[in-house]
Amino acid sequence: MYHARELTVATRGRGFYDITDEVQRAVAASGARDGLCTIFLHHTSASLLLCENADPDVRKDLESFFSRLVKDGDPLFVHDAEGPDDMPAHVRTVLTQNSISVPIKGGEASLGTWQGLYVWEHRTAAHQRRVTVSIVS
Amino acid sequence: MYHARELTVATRGRGFYDITDEVQRAVAASGARDGLCTIFLHHTSASLLLCENADPDVRKDLESFFSRLVKDGDPLFVHDAEGPDDMPAHVRTVLTQNSISVPIKGGEASLGTWQGLYVWEHRTAAHQRRVTVSIVS
Amino acid sequence: MYHARELTVATRGRGFYDITDEVQRAVAASGARDGLCTIFLHHTSASLLLCENADPDVRKDLESFFSRLVKDGDPLFVHDAEGPDDMPAHVRTVLTQNSISVPIKGGEASLGTWQGLYVWEHRTAAHQRRVTVSIVS
Repeated sequence: MYHARELTVATRGRGFYDITDEVQRAVAASGARDGLCTIFLHHTSASLLLCENADPDVRKDLESFFSRLVKDGDPLFVHDAEGPDDMPAHVRTVLTQNSISVPIKGGEASLGTWQGLYVWEHRTAAHQRRVTVSIVS
Repeated sequence: MYHARELTVATRGRGFYDITDEVQRAVAASGARDGLCTIFLHHTSASLLLCENADPDVRKDLESFFSRLVKDGDPLFVHDAEGPDDMPAHVRTVLTQNSISVPIKGGEASLGTWQGLYVWEHRTAAHQRRVTVSIVS
Repeated sequence: MYHARELTVATRGRGFYDITDEVQRAVAASGARDGLCTIFLHHTSASLLLCENADPDVRKDLESFFSRLVKDGDPLFVHDAEGPDDMPAHVRTVLTQNSISVPIKGGEASLGTWQGLYVWEHRTAAHQRRVTVSIVS
């Protein structure tokens, strides 16, 4: 059996947006007890992230690390049509993920105790981000 | 239902090879209207990439960034049996992806407007790269 | 059809732990001839890795590269509750993978000739790591 649900995530610019609850609701609505849940983000300048969900400093440190590794406005980049964060957003996306598959067990996505699911917006401006949750059971 | 199709991508050395159309043809041939399409690359020195498909400068900048981050011939690396690009190819692969899952909607892989699917060859020499497209519906 | 098997990997601290054989046994036990095998790691400070399995220097070089890229005890990091390797373990996880999907062909996970599947422990201390192998056929 295959079920899908589309989510729209309205971001307010660079940062992390927790979608764990929405994904769990999509799994519950599918009626699947056991199976596979795949989350897909339809963009190339934002990522999906499985991240520690307890201490918010973890996300802050992730952002610090990636900001230092992939510098906005780096003169290395030719593609800057949409500003200094344009190409860095594509690089950050390639260094992370656009699809993540999580097993479903007992009717829910079987995340680890400390695993939360996030959309990581890499652009500094607000965007509407489209996510599809696919459930195979 | 499960369908699979194998693709062979003949690369001409380091660079990006668009496989979007071939993946869409595999989805169409499966007859699936809704489901999950998983692309897998059977190698450890090349990657799969979901990338902006409009401006070719995005791929050039990605290559520039990765060339600077993972330097060919870096004396840090012990493993250089196949030359200065050998170990960097493995590192680039680990930093990116070998499997990507995309939802199928209305009979096609539901990629975002700007998302193309690429094999990213990390070796400087030409290679034959094997890709499997798996369709669950 | 959906089958799942849970594995526990007892790590002895930072390093690579080959789970290829255990994944192949899970596939064989499912009875699936053709399908999709998805491996998921339920943690945020260890990764799954598809890596060259012939020369152990490849894994050593990967560790050297990541140790240099994401320095233990980097003063950039605020989150260090569990020591200097705490936040670097989260960053390394985000730069790599927690879920990998491999096609099943002829009753086994169709890995490339040189592809092995590893749990990469990023913490310096020993941990019990939970992995789920999901099989859709």
